[in-house]
Amino acid sequence: MKIGIFGLGLIGGSLGFDLRSHGHYVLGVSRRPSTCEKAMAIGCADEAAVEMNLLTTADVVFICTPIGLIVPKFMELINYLPTNCIITDVGSVKTPIVQAIAPHWQNFIGGHPMAGTADSGIEAAQGHLFVDRPYVLTPTATTPKSVIEVIEGLVSQLGSKIYHCSPEAHDVAVSWISHLPVMVSASLIAACMGESDRQLLELAQNLASSGFRDTSRVGGGNPELGVMMAQYNRQALLASLQQYRHHIDETINAIEREDWPALEEKLSSTQQARPLFTE
Amino acid sequence: MKIGIFGLGLIGGSLGFDLRSHGHYVLGVSRRPSTCEKAMAIGCADEAAVEMNLLTTADVVFICTPIGLIVPKFMELINYLPTNCIITDVGSVKTPIVQAIAPHWQNFIGGHPMAGTADSGIEAAQGHLFVDRPYVLTPTATTPKSVIEVIEGLVSQLGSKIYHCSPEAHDVAVSWISHLPVMVSASLIAACMGESDRQLLELAQNLASSGFRDTSRVGGGNPELGVMMAQYNRQALLASLQQYRHHIDETINAIEREDWPALEEKLSSTQQARPLFTE
Repeated sequence: MKIGIFGLGLIGGSLGFDLRSHGHYVLGVSRRPSTCEKAMAIGCADEAAVEMNLLTTADVVFICTPIGLIVPKFMELINYLPTNCIITDVGSVKTPIVQAIAPHWQNFIGGHPMAGTADSGIEAAQGHLFVDRPYVLTPTATTPKSVIEVIEGLVSQLGSKIYHCSPEAHDVAVSWISHLPVMVSASLIAACMGESDRQLLELAQNLASSGFRDTSRVGGGNPELGVMMAQYNRQALLASLQQYRHHIDETINAIEREDWPALEEKLSSTQQARPLFTE
Repeated sequence: MKIGIFGLGLIGGSLGFDLRSHGHYVLGVSRRPSTCEKAMAIGCADEAAVEMNLLTTADVVFICTPIGLIVPKFMELINYLPTNCIITDVGSVKTPIVQAIAPHWQNFIGGHPMAGTADSGIEAAQGHLFVDRPYVLTPTATTPKSVIEVIEGLVSQLGSKIYHCSPEAHDVAVSWISHLPVMVSASLIAACMGESDRQLLELAQNLASSGFRDTSRVGGGNPELGVMMAQYNRQALLASLQQYRHHIDETINAIEREDWPALEEKLSSTQQARPLFTE
């Protein structure tokens, strides 16, 4: 198949490696010529260029830009594509993208490969990035069956675990397990930094170990990504945060009332529940 | 030196290994005969017994019981010890212990070796557990200099990084970096489990990956330990939790108002601050 990849960063570049290794012919488009050269040099595209019209002959196009560019770039791109071309995207929030794109393109399906590394850009691209990772597809009632099948076929070649759900369900699920943790974790760092006694703050910093390290990890990540999550998944994230605050309040109340059985019950239930997410 | 270890679990047993390796004679006391036998068999005590009077000749005694037993066992133990014997403990909260013990024993200093493993008990004991780990000593205005020096000498043989502070400062610091994270992390799991749509909850569980895994780790730990932290460090933990809730509220407000510059500023400051705790 001829596969276009629009946006040659970590995800786009890694898709290119895997799809080429399965015999597909990969056309890459990036806004920077140097990225195009690098993509061809390292082998994640057969051809690469800065012009969108490189993709005119593609059977399938993956839009792999940062989330804020997916819809505007799609709007440009469709001027170059035949209507039978299948378009998908890799954005980490699905409702606003699917709502914006689906009315304009019959052969579209939203997708979210849930893989990554701490690094980004074409330099971080690698083969097998998606193996055993979830890849969520968010077809709607009007998505043609043939479109679902073609993208499923490509995603199974990546070795991913495929999940299907509505764009809205996807966004609520990632709000719980990805976007809420960022805000929870960042608030921990912010609260600790609020310690007004300088010596005490330094002591806390010196004593911090694996518990603090793990709980604060995602809260110390890229601020732009965190803002992006909140912007694009605002409603689901707010609902998650409200529920979360309720549990913080319950915890505070139990400790204030010295209701140790209530606290122990809460901590026992979380101990039991965690493996449902992590195993 | 003759060193008594009262309570042969992970910490007591590991202290025994290291202190013996530095030529000290280690006397171990445990309430279970089988633990005493094991301690001698694996080499973390020269002698071990269930009777407290084994410690009568000790120069220094480390009380290594679970935190709730430190004060009551100390009260029994002092009937067997000469007044020049130096006593220390390894409890993870210091104020209530130092307040209870110091008035009864001149030669006492509180301590907190901040090391551990996921496992507990004499089976988990190991040499070099404390190397490069913080070991906090909490002398008071009345702690004799000689007592501080003797315990410092032993702790430096363990290879630990020694910190000195008041019991109160210790408890505030560990509240920030150890006890607050447990409540923050447990509340994340509890909030996610509150998702009432069964299918959505399952989807979230399937999609959860390293971000959720890390942020939820300490909240999925031993519930009894979590309750213990709240019981013994109630005041500091409540203060930390109130501050934390304030930051959750700020985050919610910024997202509600769509004040993205405010959210980005917050996330930038936490990104900058985290290395102060983890590097």
